[in-house]
Amino acid sequence: MDNIGLWKVPRDRCAAIVYNAIKVGYQLLDGAGDYGNEKEAVEGVRRALKEGIVNRGELCFLELWGLNYFDSYLVHFPIALAYVDPAHRYPPEWWGDDGKSVNLQNTPFQETWGAMEELVDEGLVKNIGVSNVAGALLVDILSYARIEPQVLQVELHPYLTQEPLLKLSKTLGIAVTAYSSFAHHGYLELGFKVNVKSLFQQDPVVNAARAHERSPAQVLLRWATQRGVAIVPKTNAGDRLSSNLDCTSFDLTEEIDAFSALNFDLRVGSSGLGVEPN
Amino acid sequence: MDNIGLWKVPRDRCAAIVYNAIKVGYQLLDGAGDYGNEKEAVEGVRRALKEGIVNRGELCFLELWGLNYFDSYLVHFPIALAYVDPAHRYPPEWWGDDGKSVNLQNTPFQETWGAMEELVDEGLVKNIGVSNVAGALLVDILSYARIEPQVLQVELHPYLTQEPLLKLSKTLGIAVTAYSSFAHHGYLELGFKVNVKSLFQQDPVVNAARAHERSPAQVLLRWATQRGVAIVPKTNAGDRLSSNLDCTSFDLTEEIDAFSALNFDLRVGSSGLGVEPN
Repeated sequence: MDNIGLWKVPRDRCAAIVYNAIKVGYQLLDGAGDYGNEKEAVEGVRRALKEGIVNRGELCFLELWGLNYFDSYLVHFPIALAYVDPAHRYPPEWWGDDGKSVNLQNTPFQETWGAMEELVDEGLVKNIGVSNVAGALLVDILSYARIEPQVLQVELHPYLTQEPLLKLSKTLGIAVTAYSSFAHHGYLELGFKVNVKSLFQQDPVVNAARAHERSPAQVLLRWATQRGVAIVPKTNAGDRLSSNLDCTSFDLTEEIDAFSALNFDLRVGSSGLGVEPN
Repeated sequence: MDNIGLWKVPRDRCAAIVYNAIKVGYQLLDGAGDYGNEKEAVEGVRRALKEGIVNRGELCFLELWGLNYFDSYLVHFPIALAYVDPAHRYPPEWWGDDGKSVNLQNTPFQETWGAMEELVDEGLVKNIGVSNVAGALLVDILSYARIEPQVLQVELHPYLTQEPLLKLSKTLGIAVTAYSSFAHHGYLELGFKVNVKSLFQQDPVVNAARAHERSPAQVLLRWATQRGVAIVPKTNAGDRLSSNLDCTSFDLTEEIDAFSALNFDLRVGSSGLGVEPN
């Protein structure tokens, strides 16, 4: 399954990027209400469906895109925010009406999970999962889940190898999807200052890229998939749509461990440590 | 509040160590069913009470010691084990009757927490808390808690500074208690092999100890308490009972940051990473 992430894909180019992604073979689009580009993304999907490039059964969707059902639907964060009526504000964003405060809601995760299960019952979603969840909460969810989470999406890259969580997920039978596969790169675009060396410039990555005649991005994605982790790389550049896809046609060897040795538990998106706005 | 930990205190010396600890001024004894030395510890307590060294109101207890009430009672791990009747086996330990398998029980944490709240309702416990719990589960507990956790006990030392968790706990109004204040030291006694330099030999610690005319252990404990973290150091050596206690009579300065800079998120007890049995 080839996946593409839609976070930070600009609204005005989103339809085209999604259309082209489907055209070159992507089958899973990782979107979110929080990304604010859903309407445009669905335009791209509809165009591809209309032109017969793909049929519904070959595509997976992760968000509420006005279609009949969604293949996979994840709880974005284990934090309940106060409901925002789409008629009032869409996308809802993190902040309340003042644009500053975050309005939390006192909802136990068990209740949230029950609502996710109902979506499956109603045939609106094929499988459900979680994101940004740590070990103890994952175990707790399984204690009350009628329908178990199929997928866990977390930040994962050679600076944050997540060994214990991968091991636990395997034991629990939950598939892991990585976000921020290039560590802090996705945050540089947002104008964040990160005092960390680029993964693209790390010796093991550079050497592996040279040896396999691939880009650093490709070997980093391969590192993930060879560890049994699914990926959702994003790109706004047309040529990288294809190159990100071509990351299973070769195998890393002991290079996997060399990449993993770069780990220092850097959490970029999942804690904000090591990252500060300019 | 001066606290002493009872993990790994040998059964045959436990009564004497507890008695002496109370004598030199410890007020909180951090015990657990899992430690297997409760009966002996309570002997030491009863002797101190009998001799009038201390009265009940000045002591805090963390475990089921056959007393009228407990001041603080924590959920040891966010993992539900199958109940073991004390008549069948005491202490229950981690393993089932075969001495190998761990028998889990499918109990949502909310149910466990409800049972903890009932102990408060019944007057058996003054306050309740959690241990070995991560951020997302902590937030979840607060969403359903009728009586909020007062204390969070986690592994915490300069190799695992727990900055984000401390910040979160402060926001949530939960006091943090550290265990394994000397990192892997407590595990060496158990015959574990740990390829990590002793905190006692780290330059910032050695220098601070010299500057303040204290032991490395004392400055490490002071580092914790100055960060607002309570401690439960253990000792089987009589003379260290007093010296561990004498760790608030001086203040570290910028040394605090120097200790914290040693952080590399080493989890010794809370994940087993970096530690292996001989």
